[in-house]
Amino acid sequence: MLTIIAGTNRKNSTTLKIAKFYQQRLAAKNVSSTIMDLAQLPTDFVFSALYENSGKHEVFNQFRKQITDSQQLVFIVPEYNGSYPGVLKSFIDGLQYPDGLKGKEVALVGLSAGVLGGAWALSHLTDILHFLNVDVISVKVRLASIKSHFVDGEITNPLYNELLEMQIEKLMLNNTTIYNIS
Amino acid sequence: MLTIIAGTNRKNSTTLKIAKFYQQRLAAKNVSSTIMDLAQLPTDFVFSALYENSGKHEVFNQFRKQITDSQQLVFIVPEYNGSYPGVLKSFIDGLQYPDGLKGKEVALVGLSAGVLGGAWALSHLTDILHFLNVDVISVKVRLASIKSHFVDGEITNPLYNELLEMQIEKLMLNNTTIYNIS
Amino acid sequence: MLTIIAGTNRKNSTTLKIAKFYQQRLAAKNVSSTIMDLAQLPTDFVFSALYENSGKHEVFNQFRKQITDSQQLVFIVPEYNGSYPGVLKSFIDGLQYPDGLKGKEVALVGLSAGVLGGAWALSHLTDILHFLNVDVISVKVRLASIKSHFVDGEITNPLYNELLEMQIEKLMLNNTTIYNIS
Amino acid sequence: MLTIIAGTNRKNSTTLKIAKFYQQRLAAKNVSSTIMDLAQLPTDFVFSALYENSGKHEVFNQFRKQITDSQQLVFIVPEYNGSYPGVLKSFIDGLQYPDGLKGKEVALVGLSAGVLGGAWALSHLTDILHFLNVDVISVKVRLASIKSHFVDGEITNPLYNELLEMQIEKLMLNNTTIYNIS
Repeated sequence: MLTIIAGTNRKNSTTLKIAKFYQQRLAAKNVSSTIMDLAQLPTDFVFSALYENSGKHEVFNQFRKQITDSQQLVFIVPEYNGSYPGVLKSFIDGLQYPDGLKGKEVALVGLSAGVLGGAWALSHLTDILHFLNVDVISVKVRLASIKSHFVDGEITNPLYNELLEMQIEKLMLNNTTIYNIS
Repeated sequence: MLTIIAGTNRKNSTTLKIAKFYQQRLAAKNVSSTIMDLAQLPTDFVFSALYENSGKHEVFNQFRKQITDSQQLVFIVPEYNGSYPGVLKSFIDGLQYPDGLKGKEVALVGLSAGVLGGAWALSHLTDILHFLNVDVISVKVRLASIKSHFVDGEITNPLYNELLEMQIEKLMLNNTTIYNIS
Repeated sequence: MLTIIAGTNRKNSTTLKIAKFYQQRLAAKNVSSTIMDLAQLPTDFVFSALYENSGKHEVFNQFRKQITDSQQLVFIVPEYNGSYPGVLKSFIDGLQYPDGLKGKEVALVGLSAGVLGGAWALSHLTDILHFLNVDVISVKVRLASIKSHFVDGEITNPLYNELLEMQIEKLMLNNTTIYNIS
Repeated sequence: MLTIIAGTNRKNSTTLKIAKFYQQRLAAKNVSSTIMDLAQLPTDFVFSALYENSGKHEVFNQFRKQITDSQQLVFIVPEYNGSYPGVLKSFIDGLQYPDGLKGKEVALVGLSAGVLGGAWALSHLTDILHFLNVDVISVKVRLASIKSHFVDGEITNPLYNELLEMQIEKLMLNNTTIYNIS
């Protein structure tokens, strides 16, 4: 299973729209995927699903199971204060420790209003993911100045599309969910 | 004002105990400080105090005000999954944007059960803080293998104490809250 | 071909000894490898083989060719001043640009006299390698306090050996140089 | 003394031109500075001035002395392969260990043909400098797409100039070389 994580809990986020666009790009290659929207997390999960409550929160456990069942993950990561949103790290902090992500393959996509496209966000996440023995696809996509390059649900910048294509091809090498549409 | 932030919402954390130890060390030099314990944050602040709710949450605003009123901050940062706790970044994401921390001076202390002492946690935070135009004291203290070196509320490792001393001296150069006890 | 790069130009380095140990570990699994010792680089290569001289230095070109012919690389990286040795980055700066390393698979091993084991060195190299579209094996080995754990050419720390084993197994998944010794 | 380091050994580099521009900006505020051009280093210094030769190379020692005599340093850092040039790190590796930079104040300026402006280069350098107990000014300037924004020796991008101004003002707080021109 391949899950695309919209990495913020902001409502109606561009991040979620990018996740949907990514899903369409995968579907165009006959790759099935599911979107996980962090805006749907229990609002107090940072307190009610971590530490002494780890593994005991019924709703959060459904998110955990979705991760457990996924061999591949795509993180869509908006740049907040120069790095990733805290809620995304809290979500990781709430997964089964220390093996909740181990051995999975992750693709990273950053987006930002500014020029960096989440350069540090993706770099910091890579440190974390490698620490947890997660494979990170070398092609990381940084969608900078997103408002100029994402219009009506489509990426309009050719370079961005090319990089997304390269990343998706890497994902497909190890993907087991390509369905037969015929 | 100098505020020491216990950078996790885990209950009865070693992080909070280190914060208290740090406060004592400051007090021994006649430097007044206040502890801010992230375990006291509203449990749903990541949803109820960010984005469209930014600045509207009465309880969270008290945390914001404490930060605004502080010229100096000490972050006590436990290592979670190779970096800082997500809740600490969410707290920063909830501050007034983009100037909530601008111009303040920050000291960083990491702690870990393992050997790194939060090396990446402090490095990632530095990226974020510099992005926000916050001064970061060059002496960063990494309290690795904390269980062996923090006993009965005291740091027992001489090197750790020496580094803390160096950091506190740097803080004192710009501190305005040294009180006259005579 | 698999090449192990001893990532310093220091003479008689522990780094080179670790490279030889790594080669033995690979050989024990019937994986053939070659060691590249940066101490053998032309002494003025940073001036005579880069920029306007790129590709024109006969001796340096032999190093380039060795890299070109290798599908897999193992970097043995001593920690100098908190990161990797400058000479290792200069070596990368001297490779064919921008595709000299593209598509290769790299394993990273850090070593240090101190407690970090090259944590930042490997992190910084990962940023560089991902920028160049190089696959980095998620298992990174940090050989901290190396003097206590590397005796008579053997790693004596069981955890270190276990991590090296994990990394080598990852390398073997994509390796094409396993020879038949029978 | 304030020294501006042109952080590459490439001949006739844009980096050196930016260093000269920075010097003019300082001079306009009556701050005296000296430029150190790494292109003037002995061509084999990575071999002849490090390790067993540390401190024994007469010409390299003049560079060391210049650093020792400087209380403030400005690093002008071009982005090579996603980070800083190897030669800049080798230069740091050749300084007196471990105290060659301790206690100095450093300002960082990155430049790149691409969009990052040396974001990682400056981040990696900060890790190194903090490891060495060097103060890093929080305002880091990233001069991205430099060819469009540096014309005839002048920065034409108003935001870039504003950031440089902010950085220089920080430098001036601790500067002792402001001369009296009257």
